[in-house]
Amino acid sequence: MKSILIIGAGRSSTALINYVLNKAQERGWYVIVADADPGLADKKVNGHPNGRAVWLDVTKSNDRKETIGRADVVVSLLPAHLHLEVAHDCIKLKKHLITASYVSQEMYRMGDEARNRELIFMGEMGLDPGIDHMSAMQRIHQIKADGGKLISFVSNTGGLVAPESDTNPWHYKFSWNPRNVVLAGQGTAQYLENGKLKFIPYNRLFKEYRTLEIPGMGEYEAYANRDSLLYREVYGLDEIPNILRGTIRARGFCDAWHALVRIGLTDASFPILDSGNITYHEFMEAYVPPNGSGSVKERVARMIDVDVDSDVMKKLEWLGLFRKKKIKLSNASPALILENLLLDKWKLSTGDKDMIVMQHQFEYEMKGEHKQLTSTLVMKGEDDVNTAMSKLVGLPMGIFVRLVMEGKINSKGVNIPVMPEVYNPVLTELKEYGVDFKEEEKVISV
Amino acid sequence: MKSILIIGAGRSSTALINYVLNKAQERGWYVIVADADPGLADKKVNGHPNGRAVWLDVTKSNDRKETIGRADVVVSLLPAHLHLEVAHDCIKLKKHLITASYVSQEMYRMGDEARNRELIFMGEMGLDPGIDHMSAMQRIHQIKADGGKLISFVSNTGGLVAPESDTNPWHYKFSWNPRNVVLAGQGTAQYLENGKLKFIPYNRLFKEYRTLEIPGMGEYEAYANRDSLLYREVYGLDEIPNILRGTIRARGFCDAWHALVRIGLTDASFPILDSGNITYHEFMEAYVPPNGSGSVKERVARMIDVDVDSDVMKKLEWLGLFRKKKIKLSNASPALILENLLLDKWKLSTGDKDMIVMQHQFEYEMKGEHKQLTSTLVMKGEDDVNTAMSKLVGLPMGIFVRLVMEGKINSKGVNIPVMPEVYNPVLTELKEYGVDFKEEEKVISV
Repeated sequence: MKSILIIGAGRSSTALINYVLNKAQERGWYVIVADADPGLADKKVNGHPNGRAVWLDVTKSNDRKETIGRADVVVSLLPAHLHLEVAHDCIKLKKHLITASYVSQEMYRMGDEARNRELIFMGEMGLDPGIDHMSAMQRIHQIKADGGKLISFVSNTGGLVAPESDTNPWHYKFSWNPRNVVLAGQGTAQYLENGKLKFIPYNRLFKEYRTLEIPGMGEYEAYANRDSLLYREVYGLDEIPNILRGTIRARGFCDAWHALVRIGLTDASFPILDSGNITYHEFMEAYVPPNGSGSVKERVARMIDVDVDSDVMKKLEWLGLFRKKKIKLSNASPALILENLLLDKWKLSTGDKDMIVMQHQFEYEMKGEHKQLTSTLVMKGEDDVNTAMSKLVGLPMGIFVRLVMEGKINSKGVNIPVMPEVYNPVLTELKEYGVDFKEEEKVISV
Repeated sequence: MKSILIIGAGRSSTALINYVLNKAQERGWYVIVADADPGLADKKVNGHPNGRAVWLDVTKSNDRKETIGRADVVVSLLPAHLHLEVAHDCIKLKKHLITASYVSQEMYRMGDEARNRELIFMGEMGLDPGIDHMSAMQRIHQIKADGGKLISFVSNTGGLVAPESDTNPWHYKFSWNPRNVVLAGQGTAQYLENGKLKFIPYNRLFKEYRTLEIPGMGEYEAYANRDSLLYREVYGLDEIPNILRGTIRARGFCDAWHALVRIGLTDASFPILDSGNITYHEFMEAYVPPNGSGSVKERVARMIDVDVDSDVMKKLEWLGLFRKKKIKLSNASPALILENLLLDKWKLSTGDKDMIVMQHQFEYEMKGEHKQLTSTLVMKGEDDVNTAMSKLVGLPMGIFVRLVMEGKINSKGVNIPVMPEVYNPVLTELKEYGVDFKEEEKVISV
C-alpha cells in the first residue's frame, strides 16, 4: 500500500489533509499525519479508515527518519527553518518532498542530489507563493506561445476579510501569520519600471502605495513587496522592463499602517523592560516629543502630521492605543505589543469569512497592438475555520501529492511550480474548488 | 621581567603602545605587540629596547594560548567578537585583561571565574565608553558625597573635525569606524524624561535632535543614543528621573543625515545586484517615485520635503550623489555605497586635526537649591595620524595597564571603570595629556 506522510497538523493543514484522505480512499493509499501534538493529528485524521495519526518530534533525528522511511511522498508543513533536516532525510531515504514555503538557497543546492535519485522536491506550492506562480506562468507561456512580447507584469495578492464579515475600521482581519503582517516590508522594496530599478525604503513603503480596481469589488490599495526582481529570472522574464509584486489591502489601510510605522510601533529590535507595568496610553506617550501641549492623542497626531479627527487617528484609537489599560506583556518589543493587540482586534469571529484577492496585470505587444490582460481571483472562505486561505494553501499541495502518487510528474530536482505539467492539472482541478480567475483583455494602443 | 601583551597593532593602537613602551622603559617591563600582520606590529614597536613584535593569528588557539601564557597583563584591541576567546584563555592562564569594547553579557558571565582567580577583566576602558564613565562617575560620586540628589544626567560625546580643519559643508570627517557612523541609530532610542520612558524610532531620530552649547565653541547638535537606560544601573542612578546620552554633531548635520535616512541610503539589509554598473545619479533616481517631473535632484528634494536650494540638498550634492559617475561596487547594499562614498569625502587630509567633544550636564538638589553643573572636554588631535580619538581611546588603557602592573588595583572580576581606585588616578594622569574638563556651575532655582 503506497503511503503519504504529512508532517504538521496545525491550523493550515485541514484542507490538505481532507483532500489527501479523500483521494486515498478512492485510490487505496495510506495517509500518516505526524505532529508533536498527537491529539491534534488525531483530530485531523478523525478516524478515517485510510489515515493514521502518529506522534513525531521532528528534532529527534531517529524518529524522524523512521517515520519518513515508511512513506512514498512527504509533505512538510513545518516552519521553514525545519524543512532542511527533513529534506536531507528525503534524499537519503529516496522520498519526494512537497512544501508551501519559499525555497531557500540551501534547499536549491540539493537539486543535483535530488535529481540523481530521481526525486522531486517541490517548494512554494501554496497560495502566495504557489497559485500566484502557476496562474501567472500559464498566462505568460500562453502570451509567448502566441507571439506576444511581455512589457509589464504587475501582480498583487492579499489575504483579506470578506465584505460581509468586515466589521472594523481597518477592513482587515487575520487569516494568516500575524507576526508576518506586523513585520511586513522592513528593508527596501525593489522593482522595475520602464527598464529602471526602483527602490522604496520601509519609511516610505506604506505612503507610496498604489490603488487597484478589483472587478465587482471596488478599489483596493497595494504596497510593494521586497522581492519583485527575483521573479524576472524565475518566470523567464529577464528582459521585461516593468515588474512589480505587491500586497493588497483595503482602502485606508496603508495610510494608517504608515502611521504605526512612523510612530515606531513595528520595531522588533529591542525589549521594553517596563512593558509589563505600563498602559497603552503610557506606551504611546513615550513616543511623543517632550514638552508638547494637549492630550497624548493630539500630540501623536501632530507628530505624524495628521489631523486628530482623521480616519488614520480613528483607526489608531479603535485599536485601543490610547486606553489607560495595562499592556501586561513583560520584556516585549513594540512590534510584539502591537501584534498582541492586533491578535485580539483583528481576530476572525465565529462564522466570519476571509477573502483572497489575487490580480495579475500583463501588458504585451502582439501583432502591432499594445494589450493589457487582467486576471483576477476573488475567493471567500466558508467560515473562520474553513478559510479561503487554508484552502488555497492546502489544496495545491494536495493536488500535487496526487499527481506525484499517480506518477504523472516527470520533473526532477528542486523546483517551484512554473512548468506546464504541474500548473495545468493543478489549476484545472482547483477550478472545481472555486478557484476561478476572471480575465479581461483590452487594447491600450495600436 | 614582567610583561604586557598587546593584541592588535592597527590604526587605533599607536597612543597605547607608545605610552606602554615608555613606562616599560622606566620600570623595566617588557611589551609584546602581536598582530596577524607582523610588519604592522614591527612598525609600532619601532625597535624599542623594551618591546618585541610577534606574529599572531588569534583564530589559531594554540598560538594564542602560548602568546598569552607569556604575559602578565593582556590588552585586546581585537574586534569585539574576538575578545571572548582571549578572555577564556586569560581565565585558564590567570592573566588580567583590558579592552576598550562594550562588555557583552557573555563576558559579564565570566565575572565569578575571574574573581575566584583574583583577576581583573576591565572593559569599556577607552573614550566612549571609557572616559565618559570615569569623568561622569567622579562627579556623580562627589555630588552624592556632598549630600546632593541627582535629578538629571545628560551626556553627549562626538568625534568631530577641529574648526581649523573643517573644510566641508557637513563639518564632519572620520576619526573612527565609518561603518558605525553610517549605521548609527538603527532601532529605537530610549531615554527618561521627568520620570517617564521616552522612545525615538530611527525614522525620527535625526529630526528630533537637541542643540547644545559648548563653551568657546558655539552651538552643536546631539541625537539620542539607543542605550541611555542601561546607565541608570551602571552609574547607581536607579531613581534618577532624567537620563539621556547622545552623539554630538555640527549644526546642520542631523537634518542632512535625516535626509539620507528618508531617501533610504542607510539600509544595509540587501545587496543591489546592478550596483557595479550604475551611476550615483541612477542610484538616486531609483529612489524617487515614478512619473515625477524635473531633474532627479528636484524630485529627491520634493520626496523628502526640502527646498531644492536648501542646505540639506547642498550637502547631498556635495557628496556627489547626483553625479553621473559609476559606483563601481558590485552587490553592495545602499549603506555600503554610502559608506564608500563618505570614506573618500570625509577623510582626514594630511595634517588635518580631529576634535573630541564630551559634555556632561548634571542637575541636582542640594540644601534646598536646584543646581546645574556642566562639565565639558574639548580636545584636538595633532594631525591626521596622531588623532585625539586614538589618544583618548589608547591612553586610558595604557594608564590602567600601568596601575595593574604596579599592583595598585584591588578590584577583581569583570568591570567597567566606575570605581574611584580606577577613575581617580586615570583622570589625574590624563590631565597631563591635555584631557581637562572645564566645569561651570549655576543655581537654577532655590
